[in-house]
Amino acid sequence: MMRRNVLFIMCDQLRFDYLSCAGHRTLDTPNIDRLASRGVRFTNAYVQSTVCGPSRMSAYTGRYVRSHGSTQNGVPLRVGEPTLGDHLREVGVRCALIGKTHMAADDEGMERLGIDRSSIIGVHIAECGFEPFERDDGLHPSTAYDPDPAYDAYLREHGFDADNPWEHWANSGEGRNGENFNGWLLVHADKAARIPEEHSETPYMTRRAMRFIEEAEAAGQSWCAHLSYIKPHWPYIVPAPYHAMFGKQDVQPAVRSEAERLSPNPVYGAFQEERYSRNFSRDEVRETVIPCYMGLIKQIDDQLGHLFAFMEERGLFENTMIVFTSDHGDYLGDHWLGEKYMFHDVSVKVPMIVYDPSKEADASRGTTSDALVEMIDLAPTFLDHFGGKAKPHILEGRSLLSLLRAQSSGAWRRYAISEYDFSADMARLKLNLPVGDCKLYMITDGHFKLIHGEATPPMLFDVTNDPRELNDRGRDPASAETVAHLRRALFHWLATPRNRITVEDSWLTADDDKMRHFDPLVGPGVLIGYWDEAELAGQHEARRKWLEETELPVNQQP
Amino acid sequence: MMRRNVLFIMCDQLRFDYLSCAGHRTLDTPNIDRLASRGVRFTNAYVQSTVCGPSRMSAYTGRYVRSHGSTQNGVPLRVGEPTLGDHLREVGVRCALIGKTHMAADDEGMERLGIDRSSIIGVHIAECGFEPFERDDGLHPSTAYDPDPAYDAYLREHGFDADNPWEHWANSGEGRNGENFNGWLLVHADKAARIPEEHSETPYMTRRAMRFIEEAEAAGQSWCAHLSYIKPHWPYIVPAPYHAMFGKQDVQPAVRSEAERLSPNPVYGAFQEERYSRNFSRDEVRETVIPCYMGLIKQIDDQLGHLFAFMEERGLFENTMIVFTSDHGDYLGDHWLGEKYMFHDVSVKVPMIVYDPSKEADASRGTTSDALVEMIDLAPTFLDHFGGKAKPHILEGRSLLSLLRAQSSGAWRRYAISEYDFSADMARLKLNLPVGDCKLYMITDGHFKLIHGEATPPMLFDVTNDPRELNDRGRDPASAETVAHLRRALFHWLATPRNRITVEDSWLTADDDKMRHFDPLVGPGVLIGYWDEAELAGQHEARRKWLEETELPVNQQP
Repeated sequence: MMRRNVLFIMCDQLRFDYLSCAGHRTLDTPNIDRLASRGVRFTNAYVQSTVCGPSRMSAYTGRYVRSHGSTQNGVPLRVGEPTLGDHLREVGVRCALIGKTHMAADDEGMERLGIDRSSIIGVHIAECGFEPFERDDGLHPSTAYDPDPAYDAYLREHGFDADNPWEHWANSGEGRNGENFNGWLLVHADKAARIPEEHSETPYMTRRAMRFIEEAEAAGQSWCAHLSYIKPHWPYIVPAPYHAMFGKQDVQPAVRSEAERLSPNPVYGAFQEERYSRNFSRDEVRETVIPCYMGLIKQIDDQLGHLFAFMEERGLFENTMIVFTSDHGDYLGDHWLGEKYMFHDVSVKVPMIVYDPSKEADASRGTTSDALVEMIDLAPTFLDHFGGKAKPHILEGRSLLSLLRAQSSGAWRRYAISEYDFSADMARLKLNLPVGDCKLYMITDGHFKLIHGEATPPMLFDVTNDPRELNDRGRDPASAETVAHLRRALFHWLATPRNRITVEDSWLTADDDKMRHFDPLVGPGVLIGYWDEAELAGQHEARRKWLEETELPVNQQP
Repeated sequence: MMRRNVLFIMCDQLRFDYLSCAGHRTLDTPNIDRLASRGVRFTNAYVQSTVCGPSRMSAYTGRYVRSHGSTQNGVPLRVGEPTLGDHLREVGVRCALIGKTHMAADDEGMERLGIDRSSIIGVHIAECGFEPFERDDGLHPSTAYDPDPAYDAYLREHGFDADNPWEHWANSGEGRNGENFNGWLLVHADKAARIPEEHSETPYMTRRAMRFIEEAEAAGQSWCAHLSYIKPHWPYIVPAPYHAMFGKQDVQPAVRSEAERLSPNPVYGAFQEERYSRNFSRDEVRETVIPCYMGLIKQIDDQLGHLFAFMEERGLFENTMIVFTSDHGDYLGDHWLGEKYMFHDVSVKVPMIVYDPSKEADASRGTTSDALVEMIDLAPTFLDHFGGKAKPHILEGRSLLSLLRAQSSGAWRRYAISEYDFSADMARLKLNLPVGDCKLYMITDGHFKLIHGEATPPMLFDVTNDPRELNDRGRDPASAETVAHLRRALFHWLATPRNRITVEDSWLTADDDKMRHFDPLVGPGVLIGYWDEAELAGQHEARRKWLEETELPVNQQP
C-alpha cells in the first residue's frame, strides 16, 4: 500500500463564514478556496465545545467532552484517555504537533501511575498524544502551556529582543515615533505588528510544518502533521501589509436585533454583559478589529498557498489527506457578544474542508456537503485513511470517507452535539449557581437547535426559518413540543455513553452464534443454573453438534 | 491522631434479607447481628450494578458505572481510573485485598502507557488499587482472573490433590461410595462439600484476613482490609455441618405472582426464560438450594464470630471501622428469576452494616437507617474515617459519617441509581437489539422505582404500596406522570456527570472573589476584550484596591 499522510490544519477562532468559498463578500481566500475545489466543504460542521481546550481535546481524542472530561480551558486531559496519536502510532504513523493544542498535562495522574514525564510516552501523554515537533500555544504570558517557546528564541535570534518578544514585537504595534502600542488592546488592531511579516507567527509556523514534512519524508515515514495556527485568535494584530488590506467598508453588518437584548435567556444575558461583549457591540470596535481579523485570515491563506505549492512540488497531493478547520468561531459583535462560549452558529460552527487524495473521492471534488458533521469525525477519518481498524468503542465520531466518496446513505447523523461548562465564567456568579449546575448542552438536528442547561431555561432556534438565529423561542410555550423532542434526543445521547473503552463491541458479541445453540460457558466449565447431569449433558451434546457443524479447528474450540 | 483502620467485608450474592437482623425467620446470624447492634444497619442500600464486576468496580472506585466504564463482568477497568487504594495510600493507609474483586486488568492500556505490570504500581493498577495480599475470585476454571490461586496450593498441601482441587474437593460433594457429585449442579446443593469445614473457602479467607491484620499491626500501619468472601455465591455447596443445618421448612415462599409471567416487560421476560430462572422457579430447586445458601451464610457468620473475637482481643474495635455488605443479591426464584441482573430489591438491594468506632457514633449504635445509600458511599466514608480530604470531583458517593454520627439533615440523597448493560446476555439476542441499546438504568426515590432502557418499555414499581414489587406499572398509562418524573431525575443525573476528575471544584472557584472585583487575568497580562489603555487602567486600579484590602502577601498576589 502506498505510504499515506495527513495534514491537519486548524485555525484558532476562525468563523465558518470568513472565507470567500463560504460566501464572504470582500475577503478573498483563493488558496483555501482551491483546497475546497479539490475536496469537500462541509457547511454544517460543529465543534464539540465552544472554547479552545475542550474543543481541541475532542478533536484530538475523537470523543465528546462528556467522555474526555477536559471541560474547561486548562483542565488537564486525564492520563490514559486514548488520543489520535495513540491510534495512529499503532498503525505506524508519526503524529506530530506544529503549533497550538491548549493541552494541560495530568501531572498528578502521571505521578500516580509512575510515568516519567520526560520519557517518550510521558511526553506523548503530556502533549495530548502528539510528538511535539513544535509546541506553541501563543499567549506567552500564559506560561502554564509553554513557558519558553522556541518562537521567542527565534525572534531574539532575528534581533527582536525583549523580556517577552512575542508580546513586545510580534503582538504589539508601533507608533510613528517608535512608541509601543499594546496589541492586546482592541484599539490598536489597526496598527501593523512590529515585525516584518516573514517573522510573524503564521509564516513561522508554516515553515516549521514544512521542516517537519521534509524530515518525515526524508525518513520515509507515514505522517500526520497537525499544523495548528494560533491565529486569527486575539491578540488582534497583524503585520504589514495585512494590517491595511481591509477597512471599514469590509465590515459586514453585525447580525443582531434589539429584541435579543430585551429579555435574553439568563445565561446569554450574562455573557452579553461581559466586557468583550459590550465592546464588540460598539461599531467603533468592530470597525477597528474586524479588518485586522480579516488580515490575519488573509495571511493564513497566503501561507497556505506557499505550503500547498511546497506539497505539490513533492507530489504530496497524491497521498496526503488535507483538512482545514478551526476550533470554534468568534462572535465579533454578532448577537451582542464577543468571543465564543455560546452556541450561535458563528461560534459553534466551523469551516471544514477535507481533501481526500484517493481516486474514489474524485466524484465529490469541489462539492459542498450539508451533512451534520462533528469535529470528532476527523480522528476516525484519519484512522480510516491510514487503513486502521475502526474503534467505535472509543472514537465517538464517524469516518467521513463515505461522505467524501459519495457512498453514504441519506442519513448521516441525526444530531450534532456541543457542550460548554460556564462554571469558571462570570455567568456562574451572576446567576448564583453551584459549579455542578453550569453545564450547557447544544443539540441540533439541522432544523432546530436547543441549548439545554439543567438550571437555566432552554434556548431554541428555528434554524430553517431563522437562519440568523435572532429569535430565541426556548421560553415560548408554543415551542414546548420541539424543546421536548430535542431534549428526548439529548437524553438518548446522554444515556448511551461510550464509556466502555477497554473492549470492543465484538468482545460482547463474539459468542452470539454459540449462544444461539448452546451455553458457551459449558466449555470452560462454569455451569450456571444447571439442575442435574442430564440437563448438562444436553448442553454438551448441543455443543458437540455445533462444533461438528462449524468444523472449527481444535485449538479454536470453545 | 490515633491510628485507624477499616475492615471492609463483602459477601458475594448475599441478599439483604438473609440475616436475622434483617428479619429472616429461621436463619440466625448472631455475629453479624451483633455488629449491627454496635453500628448502623442501612435498610435501603443499593449497589450500582447488579452483577459482580461492575458493582465491585463502583465499590472500589466510589464511582458510578457510567463513570468507570467497566460495564460488564470481565471488562477491564481503564487504566488511570482512580481507586479507593489510590486515595487511601495518599493518606498513608495500606489497602489490601483478601479475596475476590472480579477485576480484569487493562493490559492494553498499561502497555500503551508503558507501565510494567510487575512493578508495584503495575500490580496496584492490575488489582483495582489493592495490594493483593490474597487474590481469589473463586470459580477456578475461569482462569482469566486468577489462574493459580494460593488456595489450590493450600488444598494440595493438606492432601486434597487434583487437577482442580478447588472444584474437585472444595466445591463438589461425595456419595456414600466415594463418588464425586459435581457441586456446580444444583441437585447436589444438599450434599456436604468434600473437605473438612476448616479447609473450605470461608474459614481459609478469614484466617488470611487475620494474617494480614497481624502483619499490618506488627508493622504499626494504618490499614484497610478488604475481606471479600466469594460465598454464598454459587457453586451452591457447603461443608458439614452447614450442609444439613437447614431444610425445606426454612425455605420461605417465593415472592412471585402468576401475573408476573403473563405479559412481562420484554427484558424481564427474556431473563425469566434463562435456564437459571426456569430452574429456580421450580420448588424442588429452591428447596434443595436455599438450605445450602443459608448454610453458606451461617458459615460466614460463624467465621465472623472468630474474626470479631480476634479483633476484640487486640483492641481493634477501638479504632477500626467495620463494614459488612454484599456486591448484589440473588433472586433464588423470586419473581420467576434466578441469579441477579434485574432490579427488584432482592437483587439490587444489599445488606449494609457500618460500625464506626468513634465516640460521635455512640448515639446511633444499634439503630437502622432507611436513608437511600449507595455502595459508592463507602469509598468516601473510608477516606473521611481516615481524615483524608473529600474528593467530590472524583468520588460520586457521599461519606456516611454524618448519618452514623446523626449529624445529617433530613435530605440525604433524593435518588439511588443502578445500571446494568445486558448486551452480553441472551436477552440482547432475544430482543434483537444492537449492543449499544442494552443499557438499563434503575432510579428510585424510595417510593417509586423506575427501570429505564432506551430501546425497551419502562418498568415501574410503587415500592410504598407494593413493597414485594409484584406489579410492574411501567406500561400503565396511569403511571405516565410518575415515569416522566423519574425519567426527568435520571436525565438530571445523566446531564451532571463527574467527568472532570483532574481538577477539583475549587480550581474553578478560586478566583470568585477577584472576579467580583476585577478581571483576574489582568495580573498575568492576558487581556481579553479591552478597548484601550483607559479601560485597562480601570481594572488595574480595581486590582490594586482589592490587593490593598485583602492584604495578601506579595508572593500570593494574583
